[in-house]
Parts: sequence; C-alpha cells; structure tokens
Amino acid sequence: MKALSELKTKLADNDALRAAIAMMDWDQQTFMPRGSAGARAQHVSILSRMEHESATSDEVGRLLERAEEEVQPGSEDAALLRVAKRDFDLKTKLPAELVERKAKLASIAHEKWVEARKTSNFPAFADTLATMFDIAKEEAEHLGYKEHVYDALLDQYEEGATAADCRAMFETIKAPTVALVRKIQECGRQPDTSHLHGEWEIAKQKEFTEKLVEAIGFDMTRGRQDVAPHPFCTGWSINDVRLTTRYQDYLGASIFGSLHEAGHGMYEQNSPQAWDHTPLAGGVSLGLHESQSRLWENIVGRSKAFWRYFLPSLQAQFPSLDFLNLDSFHWAINKVEPSFIRVEADEVTYNLHVLLRFELECDILTGKLAVRDLPAAWNAKMKEYLGLTPKNDAVGCLQDVHWSMGSIGYFPTYSMGNLLSYQVWTALQKDVPNTDALMSEGKFAPIFGWLREKIYLQGKRYTPKDLVVRVTGKPIGAEDWVAGITAKYTALYGV
Amino acid sequence: MKALSELKTKLADNDALRAAIAMMDWDQQTFMPRGSAGARAQHVSILSRMEHESATSDEVGRLLERAEEEVQPGSEDAALLRVAKRDFDLKTKLPAELVERKAKLASIAHEKWVEARKTSNFPAFADTLATMFDIAKEEAEHLGYKEHVYDALLDQYEEGATAADCRAMFETIKAPTVALVRKIQECGRQPDTSHLHGEWEIAKQKEFTEKLVEAIGFDMTRGRQDVAPHPFCTGWSINDVRLTTRYQDYLGASIFGSLHEAGHGMYEQNSPQAWDHTPLAGGVSLGLHESQSRLWENIVGRSKAFWRYFLPSLQAQFPSLDFLNLDSFHWAINKVEPSFIRVEADEVTYNLHVLLRFELECDILTGKLAVRDLPAAWNAKMKEYLGLTPKNDAVGCLQDVHWSMGSIGYFPTYSMGNLLSYQVWTALQKDVPNTDALMSEGKFAPIFGWLREKIYLQGKRYTPKDLVVRVTGKPIGAEDWVAGITAKYTALYGV
Repeated sequence: MKALSELKTKLADNDALRAAIAMMDWDQQTFMPRGSAGARAQHVSILSRMEHESATSDEVGRLLERAEEEVQPGSEDAALLRVAKRDFDLKTKLPAELVERKAKLASIAHEKWVEARKTSNFPAFADTLATMFDIAKEEAEHLGYKEHVYDALLDQYEEGATAADCRAMFETIKAPTVALVRKIQECGRQPDTSHLHGEWEIAKQKEFTEKLVEAIGFDMTRGRQDVAPHPFCTGWSINDVRLTTRYQDYLGASIFGSLHEAGHGMYEQNSPQAWDHTPLAGGVSLGLHESQSRLWENIVGRSKAFWRYFLPSLQAQFPSLDFLNLDSFHWAINKVEPSFIRVEADEVTYNLHVLLRFELECDILTGKLAVRDLPAAWNAKMKEYLGLTPKNDAVGCLQDVHWSMGSIGYFPTYSMGNLLSYQVWTALQKDVPNTDALMSEGKFAPIFGWLREKIYLQGKRYTPKDLVVRVTGKPIGAEDWVAGITAKYTALYGV
Repeated sequence: MKALSELKTKLADNDALRAAIAMMDWDQQTFMPRGSAGARAQHVSILSRMEHESATSDEVGRLLERAEEEVQPGSEDAALLRVAKRDFDLKTKLPAELVERKAKLASIAHEKWVEARKTSNFPAFADTLATMFDIAKEEAEHLGYKEHVYDALLDQYEEGATAADCRAMFETIKAPTVALVRKIQECGRQPDTSHLHGEWEIAKQKEFTEKLVEAIGFDMTRGRQDVAPHPFCTGWSINDVRLTTRYQDYLGASIFGSLHEAGHGMYEQNSPQAWDHTPLAGGVSLGLHESQSRLWENIVGRSKAFWRYFLPSLQAQFPSLDFLNLDSFHWAINKVEPSFIRVEADEVTYNLHVLLRFELECDILTGKLAVRDLPAAWNAKMKEYLGLTPKNDAVGCLQDVHWSMGSIGYFPTYSMGNLLSYQVWTALQKDVPNTDALMSEGKFAPIFGWLREKIYLQGKRYTPKDLVVRVTGKPIGAEDWVAGITAKYTALYGV
C-alpha cells in the first residue's frame, strides 16, 4: 500500500491548505475588518494557487494511478481513490492561472457586491460580474461538456447532473407549484404574521437558536454559530464546523436560518472520524447537502409537532408572543406568498426563484443575455413567475452572494435539495413511523440517528446518484415533494 | 532585478502561509470550539512544515545570493535582503527534524502546563520542561554564539542582544528599583483600589476600551478587538491586525490590557503600505515592540493627563465611579506593591519578575540548576527580590505560558521594552514638548504622529540597535526609565 499511503499524505497536505482558505473565507464573512480586503485577496489567491498546484501535481497523478492497483474494488480505499481521482480530474482541467485569477476576482467581487447591494447600484457591480461570467465560460470550456455549457459548471456541484435534468425537474414542478400558489391566492385567506416582526433582543435570539440547533443534533463542542450578512455553513474538519445566522426584524430569520445551516452542519460533523482530513469526509453533493438543510428547516422546523414542543420556550424567551396559539403560529411560519427574496421565500414559491436564476445563467452563458441587461431580464421573469416587480436591484438581481463568489451553475442544487428533502423524509418515515409524536416530545435522536446512519456516515463514499437510490430506493424525482407540499398547504389554507 | 523579483514572489508565498498559521492561532485563542483542537494541531503542523520548507529551500538561498548583486547598498531593497537573509539563516541553521520535534513537544507541553498549573503540580510538568530546555540548548548550539548559550536564544527575539547586555541592564535598575519599592513600603500609604473591583457590564467595557484604542490611533477599519483568556496582538497584514482583551473583576484588566495590545497593534498597522507582505513590515524586535505597548499602556494610559480627559467618559459609562476624583483614580491605577504574578505587576516591580526568570533560565541552560529544583530556586529569588513566598507553584514557577511554548530567552525583552518606553518618550518630549496638555485635551495625534514617523514607518528597515540610536540618540540604557519611574512614584506616594 505504498502509493496509497503516500497519496494520503499528499491529500492531507492539501486538506491543510484548503482548511486555511476556508478559514480565511469564514473570517472574511464574519469578523474581518473592512480595510483588510486587499490583503485577504492576496493571501487567498496565493494559497489557492498553492492548493491547486499541490492537488494537480504530476506526483499526485502518478500516485493515483499506482494506488489503483493496491486497493480492493468496493473498499473504502477504492471509494477514496474514486473521489480523489474526480477532484484531480476536475482540477487538472483548470489552468493554475485561471484558478488564481478567479480567486483574486472573487475576493474583490465580494466587497464590490456588498457595496453595490447596499446602495442598490447594479452598474457599479456589472463589469465585475461580467468578468466573473466570462471566467465561468472559460472554466466550462476547460472542464468540457457534451450538450450544454451549463453541464460542465453544474457537475462541479452535483456530480452527473445536467441542464437537461434541471429543465425536466422544473418542468415537473412548475405546473403544480403555480396551481397551488393560485389556489392559495384565490382563497383570500392569509395568516397574521405581524407579531413575528419587531425588535428581538439579539442575545435572546442567540440563546434560543443555539438551543434549537443543539436539540436537533448539532454538536457545539465541535462547531459554533456566528453572525454573517448572508448565512452559510463552512468547516475545515469533521470536528470544526461553523454555522452563521443573522438577526433581523423578522424573528423567523434567525430561527429558520439557524435550523437550515445546522442541517448542513450536522451532515458535515457526522462523517466517520477516521475520514477526517480525507476526500471521503463531508457531504457528497450540494443537492444532498441542501436536502438536509431543508429537511431540518422546513419539514422538521416548520412542522406543527416541532412547535408543539418548542413554542412554550420561545414564548418564555419572548413574552410578547404569549397570546399566540400553536395553530396560528404554525400557519404564520408557513405563509405562502410570492416575494422578492429567495432566502426568505416560502417552501412553495422557492423553486420559482431558482428557476429564474437557472434560466438567466443559461442565457448569459450562451450569450443570449448581456450582463448589463440582467436587471431588466430579472425583473421580467419575476413578473412572469411570481407576479412581482422588484422596487430596486438590491431586492432583485443583487440579492444573492453566489455570483460574486463565482458560484455559477450552483442554484439548481437548491431545488434538487427541496425535492430530495421530501424524498428522504418519505423514506425515513417508513423506518421511523412516529415522527410527529417524537418531535412533539422534543425527541430528535431517532430522526437524527436515521439520517446519520443512512446519509451522514456515508460521507462521499457513493456518488450522489447512487446514494439517493440507496437511501430512498429511487432516483431523484418530484413526486414526494409535490405530494408533501400539496398535502401540507391545502390543509393549512383549507383549499 | 530578476533574482530580487523572483525572491519577492517566494517571500510573498511564505507570507501567505504564515498568515494562515497566524489566523489559525488567533482563532484557536479566541473562537475555536474545544473539540477542534486535534484537527487544528494537524493543520498547523502541516502548514508550519510547508512554511519551513518553503522558507529554507535551496532556491531561496540561491536567490538571496544572486539578489545581493542587484541592490544598491543603503536602499530599501538592501534592507529587505538583510532581513530576509537573517530569517533564512536563523531557519536553515535549525534542522527540520529539530523544528518538528520542538513543535510536537510544544503542543504536548502546552496541555501538560495547563493541567499542571490548574492543579499546581510542578512534578507533572518537570520532565517535559526539562526536555524543552534540552531542545533550547540544542537550538543554541545550531544557531551558534560567541560567549553565552543564552545569546543564541535571545538573538532570535532581539537581534544582537546578549546575556551580558541583560546582566548590565538589570544591574543598573535593580538598586534604584529596590530602593524605590522600599521607600513606598515604608511610607505606609496605599491608594484604595477596592472600587476598581466589581461587576462591569462587558458590552460597556468593550465600548469604552474600543473608544480608547481608537482615540490613541488604532485603526479599527484595519483591525478589531476580541476576547482571549490571555490577551495578545497578532496580525497577518499591515491592514489586518487583531487585538484581544479580557474582561475581569478588576476594571483595569480590560482598560490597560487594551491600551497595551493597541500599542503593539499601532506599530504593526503603520509600516509603509508598500512593505505589506514583505519581511520589512512589522515591528523590528520584541524589545521595540514592547516599548510601544508599554508606552501607550503606562506612560500615556496611566498618566494623570490621560485621565483628565477620559475619566468623565469612564464615569458616564460606569456611574458607580462618579464619586472618584482624578487624583485618587490616578493613584489607584498606579499602585505599587510586590506581587506574585508578572502580568499583573506594577511598573516598578515588573522588572524584578523578569530578572528572576532571566537568571533561572541562564542557570538551567548552563547546568547550574536542574529543572526539578526550579520551584525552590524560584521561591528563593521571589523572597530575595520581592519579599514574597508563593503559596504554590501555580502562582510561582508555573504561571507563565512561555516555557511551555519553548520561548526560552524571551523574557528580557519585556524589560528592554520597559526601559525603551521611557527612553523613547524622553526623546519624543523634545519634539512634542506639551504632551500633558495634549493628552488632557484628548489630542493624541501629535504623539502618535511622532512615533509613527520615527518608529512605526521604519518597520524592520534598521536593526533594533540602530533604530534605538536613530530615534533616541543613544543605545538602550536605564537612565530615562529610572528618572521617569522615580519622579512619577515619589510624587504619587509623596516619598
């Protein structure tokens, strides 16, 4: 096992460089002083180049080949080799110069995006964004694709998924979504959500949300929760996973944001310990990852059973909510209404936000749309799918952090996650049939335990497509999502 | 300038690795969850090895030689080469095996020290500490020295300083210190400091101390202040300098800790921007660094003029202090009393703590003292210099973190800093004669500006010894310190 063992040492070196980059990114989004952006850009770009050089060295290539002969098919080591080989292939296709150029741009673009969003000044960000899309096109050409330029980009986040898959997915969910939204709008009933808006002491929100994420299974001795303008989850070890949240006028922002990121975090924390620092650790794809954040945020965290248990503690923390009963609270946190901001969108309309972004990305990448015309195109699609016109670009095409980071081709994995969350939950309920009773008593261990065994402990051992079949018995599909959403919201709205 | 330019690229690579290590260290001491220590140790040790390999590569050695022919004597580039060459020499003299052995021991030793201090169990730490001193001796042999084994170790922290320098320094200050302490003790008067102990809202302390450090010149847009059990200042760019402080029962802990670290931080923030990421940026030595932290902490921050301006805001923040007048507050924050803990010692007795450590280090390194006999030797010197006997080793020879980290030969730089702070201040007052009037009006810009021009903007351009002469007109000496301390405390105590 000489080559394999040497390979593992090389991979551990790379893991350390990636950890450094990830920590710098985390710091940039949480604690970094404004004036440090230039220095951070230099450090991240140099470390990214080093990481790329080390990950794509000829020596790693040779070790990957030689190690192939040392491992048993089907073994953990074979899986490790498969994942390492895919990483190597993805990275060797991208020239070091391009990687460094992108990292540098991303760091600058992030600052520009923050500023542009603050002042709702899209033109101030347009040139940078156009350069970022040009870089994405370059990447796609280097990575290669059979049908659509989008396929090359999407595959980086969701192995094997294509633009055609996305189009099929959106085709299946668009009609039932639009129908359900129309029924809800036509019924004329909406919950009162005004009491969820107000001033909420940050220390109390922090205490409550940390209690929630610990209750469902996030291990605070191997992670923490900080504040970021755009909440995310990151980490650089199974034993060091960082959540972020934000505290806003809407109380649900911190609660559901925290549950969402904790879903990601629990997935990251629960790879087998022996896999820490290896390519087998962590979530297998963005779609699977999002299935866990959405499962904990929406299926668990927005269920009536969950709040049967937690509403009294929420009311103890915020006595102004004392008057609320469980039914009205449950309805309020599940209000369906077309809105401007994706991350604040309800479960039903959420995928329409993703569809819009997917189509715009395709149009820019194929040259059908110029970046300078993005605001108009965005607003037109918002009108078409959600019936709304953003009052400015800050709540329109400047709302997401992704493009500033160069994460183009990423959005569809959110919808895959939505679909998979219901598909996984449907499978879970066959083995854990009494989920409502458990959640009503604050017992999350059986749910967490099932997910841990079936998904989290598998790390990247199987491909995403294989894992979905192993866990749910079938490939990704829309039926469980459509059934779940329809049942939940026709009941809530009485339509 | 081909070799020089290639060299600068290599040095920038190293700067990025050092930045990553520094950030991991900062995070470990501020935010890291406790379950992440193992993963952090792996990442830091790998990155440290990479940094060492890259800093000591044959290529860097060749570039250093070739670049020598490209630079003009006396130029900035010549200074950069001199500093880079010294770094290279210091690092190449130590075998990689020794560096790794020390890093490994340090991480174990730190844990053992924490445990031993907690239980005041010196024997549980003695063997590890003895090994650490053996490693220090090995290091000294590799680094080389002319007269005393100590010289090799001290030179790493204070270029050109020797054990003989230290002995001469302590010889000069010991008698006046002991005489002053005796006079103070014999006068029988002490200020009431009880009102400085209590419960102080952390948010208010944070607000007040951040106001102080910004007022004296620390730039919060290029730095921040967090909380750490043992306050420190670190950074990884001129534009990203991190202070830490702590909030304790004694209100002065956060106030003077913050001013102290801000002194370090302002020095780091004010190298010329063009030097960022190069070996010329940052403080030139530990002694010069400490001169700035002590100048801002003690000479400025414990002056009556400073509090003439700030006491009203402190009282507005903490109305329980309303009854205090300026004189009694000024005396209270300058109380002189022999005590056990170096970091809590007053200005007058502080150097006696350092003298004791310096003598013990020399005795262990030269074989005159066995590590197992350290507690007895420590306590004997405490009795001799400070008239006290520690009630246990936790407040005796186990109190400092330095030896557990392998920082042997480091302590004398604290006393050099104390002496230099007064020496620099004396020089400053010749150009800025009205410091008291300025401080009384909260005007720190002329003081900051002078220090910035004379010291901070010089970075590492000159050797520490040269810089001291350039700034103060003479080599380091005790006369300004003795004069300053004597004047201040005979006035305060009326002796």
